[in-house]
Amino acid sequence: MRPVDSFRSMTSAPPDVFPTPDDPHLTMAVTGVDQTGTTVESKVPVERPLTIFLNTQKIVTAMTIGDHPEELAVGYLLNQGLLRPSDTIVGIGYDAELAVIAVRTKWERNLEQKLGQRTQTSGCGQGTSFGDVLDVIAGVTLPAAELRTSWLYHLTNRINTIPSLYLEAGAIHGAVLCQRDRPIIYMEDVGRHNAVDKVAGYMHRHGLDGANKIFFTTGRLTSEMVIKTVRMGIPILISRSGFTAWGVELARQTGLTLIGRARGKRFLALAGIERIVFDQDLTYVAEESTKLRRKGATNSE
Amino acid sequence: MRPVDSFRSMTSAPPDVFPTPDDPHLTMAVTGVDQTGTTVESKVPVERPLTIFLNTQKIVTAMTIGDHPEELAVGYLLNQGLLRPSDTIVGIGYDAELAVIAVRTKWERNLEQKLGQRTQTSGCGQGTSFGDVLDVIAGVTLPAAELRTSWLYHLTNRINTIPSLYLEAGAIHGAVLCQRDRPIIYMEDVGRHNAVDKVAGYMHRHGLDGANKIFFTTGRLTSEMVIKTVRMGIPILISRSGFTAWGVELARQTGLTLIGRARGKRFLALAGIERIVFDQDLTYVAEESTKLRRKGATNSE
Repeated sequence: MRPVDSFRSMTSAPPDVFPTPDDPHLTMAVTGVDQTGTTVESKVPVERPLTIFLNTQKIVTAMTIGDHPEELAVGYLLNQGLLRPSDTIVGIGYDAELAVIAVRTKWERNLEQKLGQRTQTSGCGQGTSFGDVLDVIAGVTLPAAELRTSWLYHLTNRINTIPSLYLEAGAIHGAVLCQRDRPIIYMEDVGRHNAVDKVAGYMHRHGLDGANKIFFTTGRLTSEMVIKTVRMGIPILISRSGFTAWGVELARQTGLTLIGRARGKRFLALAGIERIVFDQDLTYVAEESTKLRRKGATNSE
Repeated sequence: MRPVDSFRSMTSAPPDVFPTPDDPHLTMAVTGVDQTGTTVESKVPVERPLTIFLNTQKIVTAMTIGDHPEELAVGYLLNQGLLRPSDTIVGIGYDAELAVIAVRTKWERNLEQKLGQRTQTSGCGQGTSFGDVLDVIAGVTLPAAELRTSWLYHLTNRINTIPSLYLEAGAIHGAVLCQRDRPIIYMEDVGRHNAVDKVAGYMHRHGLDGANKIFFTTGRLTSEMVIKTVRMGIPILISRSGFTAWGVELARQTGLTLIGRARGKRFLALAGIERIVFDQDLTYVAEESTKLRRKGATNSE
């Protein structure tokens, strides 16, 4: 009988990447008092600086929980358009103590002009886009794809129950790359865009194609979130949270399927509706449990 | 009998500033489908660029819902340390069509060095801090103050029921300046930090002191949120959302009272506990209603 490992490598499916909430580097135990005045201990996610270089050019200092630094750096540079998907990465140097990571490419480009055009956006944990991002997605055509509502309900339920820093310590964002009804890459970070960038970096480093994927984010569906998803070539974006007007407009322009407010039985699709197949009998979908809702409930994002 | 208006001016309390969810400039009606495939109409908040200048220097392009541009510009510049509280503002020029706002001061300073040191943070809607922000709050001592838990419950309940863009369209953050049990300045924006900056700008323009105030945010209690609150001189910060480790550390260093996960009956205080007076009989506090929770429920932030 063939062992599981070689079967896996035969199908060439990469192993799933899920959060590691037990990693002691990612959370800190803190002592406080609760509403009754009782001393309680709780866990909170850490937040540490990581300075990203592209070759000799210092690009940005990101605040991150610190896992998957290579994916974060590569994904950030890709999603900002500072690194092109076709660029050859010849090495990544990471120094945890200095909190520095350098991505080295074969050819250096002049980044002066790009770095001069910053737009501060409404996204979480990022806020720095560069002037030509909008141009880049202008000519993009996203592939035909299918989203069955049965997959959607299975995905949201599974993502809410996979052990995560969010369930452990709260105050964190998740970004999950999915295929059909299966979450395959689940990244977390204090900044929502860091989590997204980690997924983008992972996809690039492992040669994953976005065409047959579904992207799930815990954050709001802003213009920036739509731009990143389109850049990653993923045709379907789902969130528990709400929309902004520009996010909806950009999704319609680029033909992205945009689904928000996906909680329990409910969702609202505002763009790319033609990809949705309503195959789920709603009688068998539960409303979101209070337990899931409680910890994460908040006004927005 | 004295009319209400002159009574108000006699006490010199400025009028409360609350959201204007009916303003047609702030939301857009969109059509989509829900989980049953039924066509539905919904409202989403707008998101538009606003480029902020300090004198002749272009500082940043922010994505904002667009209300209170003067407060946003002044607050942003103050919270980034680009404008000092003591600087005299000689004028603010706002051009809605060009989406440009310029704050003019008596003296121009050389901002080259400051603008060169950007740290990308985990905050929403901002993400650009400048290098010397940490130095500025290092020497700050926040004043003695009191937070009665009866005020806290009254505040959170009141803020959740004041008509707002959040209740109308979701996907938005709120920042509320409060005094005792009374919300007085309630600003909203797609980016959490824009909402905070608008409050800071309002306080500066109207000469409001932070010492006897309480600050409420819908966003997470990150380092950036703590830094801004300390800069504004406010000794107490409350949020529905969770904490990050660095946010907690900075609050402890600066003596800020930091309360998170404030929902219904619950809260968790992780710094500055000595300011809290537990005067509320918890028997009379309701758990948060499902109605309030539903729309805003999300994984984080």
